[in-house]
Amino acid sequence: MINFTVGPVQSSENVRKIGSENVPYFRTPEFSEIMLENEKLMKEFTYAPDDARVVFITGSGTASMEATIMNTLTPDDKVIVINGGSFGQRFVELCEIHDIPHTELKMEFGKGVTKEQLTQFEGKGYTGLVVNIHETSTGVRYDLDMLGEFCKKNNLFFIVDAISSFLADPINFTNNSIDVMITGSQKALACPPGISVIVMSSAAVARVEGNNVKSMYFDLKSALKNGERGQTPFTPAVGTLLQIHQRLIDIKADGGVEAEQKKIAALAADFRARISDLPLDICSDSWSNAVTPLKVRNCSAYDIFTTLKDNYNIWICPNGGNLKDSVFRVGHIGALTTNDNKVLSDALHKLADEGILK
Amino acid sequence: MINFTVGPVQSSENVRKIGSENVPYFRTPEFSEIMLENEKLMKEFTYAPDDARVVFITGSGTASMEATIMNTLTPDDKVIVINGGSFGQRFVELCEIHDIPHTELKMEFGKGVTKEQLTQFEGKGYTGLVVNIHETSTGVRYDLDMLGEFCKKNNLFFIVDAISSFLADPINFTNNSIDVMITGSQKALACPPGISVIVMSSAAVARVEGNNVKSMYFDLKSALKNGERGQTPFTPAVGTLLQIHQRLIDIKADGGVEAEQKKIAALAADFRARISDLPLDICSDSWSNAVTPLKVRNCSAYDIFTTLKDNYNIWICPNGGNLKDSVFRVGHIGALTTNDNKVLSDALHKLADEGILK
Repeated sequence: MINFTVGPVQSSENVRKIGSENVPYFRTPEFSEIMLENEKLMKEFTYAPDDARVVFITGSGTASMEATIMNTLTPDDKVIVINGGSFGQRFVELCEIHDIPHTELKMEFGKGVTKEQLTQFEGKGYTGLVVNIHETSTGVRYDLDMLGEFCKKNNLFFIVDAISSFLADPINFTNNSIDVMITGSQKALACPPGISVIVMSSAAVARVEGNNVKSMYFDLKSALKNGERGQTPFTPAVGTLLQIHQRLIDIKADGGVEAEQKKIAALAADFRARISDLPLDICSDSWSNAVTPLKVRNCSAYDIFTTLKDNYNIWICPNGGNLKDSVFRVGHIGALTTNDNKVLSDALHKLADEGILK
Repeated sequence: MINFTVGPVQSSENVRKIGSENVPYFRTPEFSEIMLENEKLMKEFTYAPDDARVVFITGSGTASMEATIMNTLTPDDKVIVINGGSFGQRFVELCEIHDIPHTELKMEFGKGVTKEQLTQFEGKGYTGLVVNIHETSTGVRYDLDMLGEFCKKNNLFFIVDAISSFLADPINFTNNSIDVMITGSQKALACPPGISVIVMSSAAVARVEGNNVKSMYFDLKSALKNGERGQTPFTPAVGTLLQIHQRLIDIKADGGVEAEQKKIAALAADFRARISDLPLDICSDSWSNAVTPLKVRNCSAYDIFTTLKDNYNIWICPNGGNLKDSVFRVGHIGALTTNDNKVLSDALHKLADEGILK
């Protein structure tokens, strides 16, 4: 199978080799050293300042989304949540569950945020802004520079879920005035799923320290404290953390985060060029390098997913809910090549020739 | 390295082979089928009734402990928590965090629960009992038959954290009147850490359905609902779930849960016989097959751990807190052999000959 979904994605040989080995015992100075290096490299690759901190949560991206809402916001806050799809909706629900006053900025399908949409929130006592910078469900990437400037100008605490955008698109913790950035092991980090990562500014750390959450597993105070010595409060997905370490040092050796972004951008551009003649429309007016969201015209998107899986050994990423039959997505993250793009493009062209894709 | 800790432990070649492969996309009928088989086999191996349910949480054992306390208990309950070490203490703290009325039965180090200790709680309005059936931190295994009978007689909701005991010691969901059983991927399931498992009776499921938790990630209603079709609400540690599947079918092929327990019991007995002449005292009056807790007499237990790690390529399991210098543990779970036992025993005898172990 070739995997063009947006997670889990394909892993490098180096990463898979670690998966083939026994998982080591971890309450050791050796593992602590690896974890401290993971924190250092995550900070480097997000351009986070020296006093930023990173915690690694054993759980899905939603675990870190929830931990962030619980630990860095309180009922005294009033936040704007940009809701452009199922992950934005998830942030809205998390604010509801945890009694965080919030206003939803509901986006039209496939549309980015405009300056005008933000202006309406100025001078109204808002304290924070929460966004999935790349709404993975629809493939829309919001304008991070504009959002960061807006947060800076209005002194808003800025929470950025960059789960599928980190390493695929430019993100600069410092220049974009980010307070919290979230990502996951199974996106462009291209490791197995099981770990999500939270990068926190000193302001975010101060919020965590001043907050008392009704949770043991999601108590980030404890994660930060244990992290000082390169450890975690509970047994983490040790193997995945070792794989993340391998991946981070490989990225560094290959030219760092910018080289990785260029690679993913080139893969995305190559694929988009290959399919430009097909009856498929990119249904986002603001793209991420991570994924190409494609609208079919006169067939079922889910049928294309099933046909490619069953007859071509290719996974593309189906959509759920009311987009199930109209949209599928093609990911450009993970260990993919332009030759893989060719295989998928050839398959799609064959389906078009046969009148299945139309 | 040979790993004698109690998790992560060594994995079989079959399990490690899956770790070497790319993680597949999981929103597919193929993955659903595997998950439904995981549920079926977990029920079979715990002797759970047909109407029991199983959910797989991406997180450590503590994640499932917390999810269980949050979802199956309410402030209207009044539970007994058996606290014989750091994991019992964790349940006490979870009850505090989530406002569950509770009474702690604080155990003396190394001691099992007696009938007399339980009798004091009869007729006092208790609704549940919470126990780490094998308190992994001290190596004490409580009398499950006695506790189960007590719960049945007094109509108590019975929560059993069997994280390191499942597959190592006899556990019978039905005969022991268990309502919730918790285990983890990295114990006798001998897979990488990252997944914990909750087996629930129909009474537990009813409690979950009737409860509203202030959590998205730990909302077991949603986990149960998604589980009906073999899926999870959020991206799980797919690779580890596939490894659990492999392990469960391997156990079944090798004679089932009783054969596995016998294997672990034989490994434990073999090790205990090999070290009976050493200046080490088994410091539990009620053993699990999963681990042998050993008290040193005139040296530091932590130094023994470090020496074995650095000079013999062997991990034993150090203790933390006030037991750090007096106690270490030797695990018998995971892909270990009697030859591994011999290697460790030889090393310990060498340390004794050199006057380091004394």
